[in-house]
Amino acid sequence: MPTNHQIHLDNRPTGEAVASNFKMVIAETPALQDGQVLVRHHFLSLDPYMRGRMNDAKSYAQPQPLGQTMGGGTVGEVVESCNPRFAVGDKVVGMGGWQEYSVVDANQPGALRKVDTTHVPLSAYLGAVGMPGVTAWYGLVKICAPKAGETMVVSAATGAVGSAFAALSKARGCRTVGIAGGPDKCQYAVQELGFDACIDYKLHKDAASLGRAIKEACPNGIDGYFENVGGMVLDAVLPNMNAFGRIAVCGMIAGYDGQPLPLSYPALILTQRLTVQGFIVSEHMEVWPEALNELGTLVGTGKLKPRESIAQGLAAAPDAFLGLLKGKNFGKQLVKLI
Amino acid sequence: MPTNHQIHLDNRPTGEAVASNFKMVIAETPALQDGQVLVRHHFLSLDPYMRGRMNDAKSYAQPQPLGQTMGGGTVGEVVESCNPRFAVGDKVVGMGGWQEYSVVDANQPGALRKVDTTHVPLSAYLGAVGMPGVTAWYGLVKICAPKAGETMVVSAATGAVGSAFAALSKARGCRTVGIAGGPDKCQYAVQELGFDACIDYKLHKDAASLGRAIKEACPNGIDGYFENVGGMVLDAVLPNMNAFGRIAVCGMIAGYDGQPLPLSYPALILTQRLTVQGFIVSEHMEVWPEALNELGTLVGTGKLKPRESIAQGLAAAPDAFLGLLKGKNFGKQLVKLI
Repeated sequence: MPTNHQIHLDNRPTGEAVASNFKMVIAETPALQDGQVLVRHHFLSLDPYMRGRMNDAKSYAQPQPLGQTMGGGTVGEVVESCNPRFAVGDKVVGMGGWQEYSVVDANQPGALRKVDTTHVPLSAYLGAVGMPGVTAWYGLVKICAPKAGETMVVSAATGAVGSAFAALSKARGCRTVGIAGGPDKCQYAVQELGFDACIDYKLHKDAASLGRAIKEACPNGIDGYFENVGGMVLDAVLPNMNAFGRIAVCGMIAGYDGQPLPLSYPALILTQRLTVQGFIVSEHMEVWPEALNELGTLVGTGKLKPRESIAQGLAAAPDAFLGLLKGKNFGKQLVKLI
Repeated sequence: MPTNHQIHLDNRPTGEAVASNFKMVIAETPALQDGQVLVRHHFLSLDPYMRGRMNDAKSYAQPQPLGQTMGGGTVGEVVESCNPRFAVGDKVVGMGGWQEYSVVDANQPGALRKVDTTHVPLSAYLGAVGMPGVTAWYGLVKICAPKAGETMVVSAATGAVGSAFAALSKARGCRTVGIAGGPDKCQYAVQELGFDACIDYKLHKDAASLGRAIKEACPNGIDGYFENVGGMVLDAVLPNMNAFGRIAVCGMIAGYDGQPLPLSYPALILTQRLTVQGFIVSEHMEVWPEALNELGTLVGTGKLKPRESIAQGLAAAPDAFLGLLKGKNFGKQLVKLI
C-alpha cells in the first residue's frame, strides 16, 4: 500500500488560526476490506467552515478532533477497489480529508459519488458543481426566493459560493450585486462572473460609508441578501433591505476567530419585516440533485466559469487555508495533490 | 354636536418620550356627511407601537403627524349615523385615536367593525380579541409554528400580547414560558395566565445571568420565541434556542428611545439554523377572522382572562402611555373615557 501524507489538527487556535495548529504526519494506508475502495486524491477543497470546526465550541458541526486528519472534500480517482460499484479509474468525489489517499467504505450512503468529467472538470465538483455551488443554490432559491427584477446581493462575491450565486441569480432575471475585497476582485466579478455591480468593502472605513456605496449600487433597495461575512458588511447591508426582504445566513467568517461580532441594529428586522434564516447545506440533501443539475449545466455550457486558486502539494494546505480566511484567495481555493 | 377633547402630538421626543410631547386640545365635532357615523369612545387602547410613530424616522408605520390627534384603537358606541349599515347604539371597534369622539367614514373597508358584547366585554376587542390578540396569534401560529411538546417563550409575558400568547400556546400542547419584570407579574403569569414558568428579568444584571435562568426554565431548549423587548432579553434567549428554532420579532421596546440596541451574537442564527422574522399584524389581514374566532372563544369560555390596566379619563392618557413604555402597566393598558 502507498505511503500517505496527512495533515492533522495538532492543537486548537487561541484567537486567530496559525500554521502551527497543524502537523504533517506520514501514515501507511491499511489493506482494503470488503466494500472499501482506495482513492488517490487529485484535489483537496479548502472551505471557510473548517475554521469553525477547529474550535472546541458548540456549533452545527462537530469539532475537528485533535490528532486526526483534517476533514474536507476531495476529488480523485479509484486506484484499488473491493467494491463492485466502483472500478479502478473511476473519478469520484467524497470527504477524504487533508491527505493524499483515503480508504472509503463505499457502501455508506453519500460517502463516495462517481462523477462525469466529460463536460465538467474534476475540480469543479469541489466548487461550482459541489458543496459551494449547492450552498449558493439553496440560499438563493430557497431563502432569498428571487423574483425577476428584484435585487440580490452576496458578500464574498468572487468566492466559490459567490460566483455560483451570480450565475444562478442572473439566470432568474435579478439585478445581482456583489461585495468583495479589492479592485481586482470587483473588476473580475463584473467582467467575468456577470455581476451587475461589485462593491469594494476595503474602500470603506465603516458601515455607514459602505452602506452608502451599497445604496448607490442598489437603487431599488435589496430584496435578497446572501451573507458569508457578517460584521460591518451585514451592518451596511441591513438598512438597505426592502420591506419583506430575505437574508440567507451562510457564514460569518468575520467572527470565526472568536471576537465579538454584534449586529448593530437588529430592530431593522422588525421595521423592514425581514426574514433572516441560517442554514447548512448538508442538512438539505433533498435539493442536491436539482441544484447539481442546474449548476452542472451552467458550467458545462460555459455560463459559469468559476476561478480557482490552486495551491501545490499537501504541505501547502495550511498556508492556503489561512490565506482563505483572510480573503487572499481569488475564487475557489483548492490544493492540487497530483 | 358635542365638544370633543383630543390629545395631539405637539412635538417629537429627543430620547425618552415625555408628557410635554403631548397637548390637550378642545375641538368641535363636525356635522356628519353621507356615509359617516359619530362614535363616542368608551375605551382607548395604548400600545407600544405608538412610541415608534412619535419619531420622525423611517419605519413601517408612517410617523404620527405633529399637531394632530394621536392615532390609536378605540371601542365605543354609535351616537349618530348617516350610514345605513350602522345604527345608534351599535358597539364598534375602530381607530378613533386619542379623543372622546370620532367621525368615521364607515364605508371605508376596515374603518369600523360592529362587535358582539354578549360573551366578550367591549374592552376585550382592544386586547385579547383585537390587534394584540391577533398579533400573538400570527407570531405564534405562523412564525413560531408550534408542535405539541415544544417549548414556546414570550417576553413582556403579562401584557396584552403575552397573555394571549400563553393561552394559544397552551392550547397547542406546548411548554410555555414567560419573561416579565417583577415578582407580581411573574406570579400572575403562572397562577392566572397559565404559563408553566415565568422568569423575572429584573433579578438579572446581564444576559449571561438571565440566560442561565431561562435555561433552567426551558430544560429542553427553546423552539419558538416571541420577541417584544429586544436588547438584553434577546441576547439571553438566543443561546438557548434549539436548532431550527423560530423567532417572531414583534417589538423591540427596549430600543424605542433611539439608544443602540445591538444583538451581541448574531452568529447563533447560523450555528443554530434559526429563522428570525419581523412582522406587523396589520399586513396580514387574511388571518384576522380565524384568529379572532379562536381568541373570542378562549375569552368567551374563560380560558383567557386577560388583566387590564385602566386609566381614567382622556387627560390621563399621556402618563399611562409613558408608564406602559416603562413596564408600569399590568396587563392590557386602556384609558376609560366614559
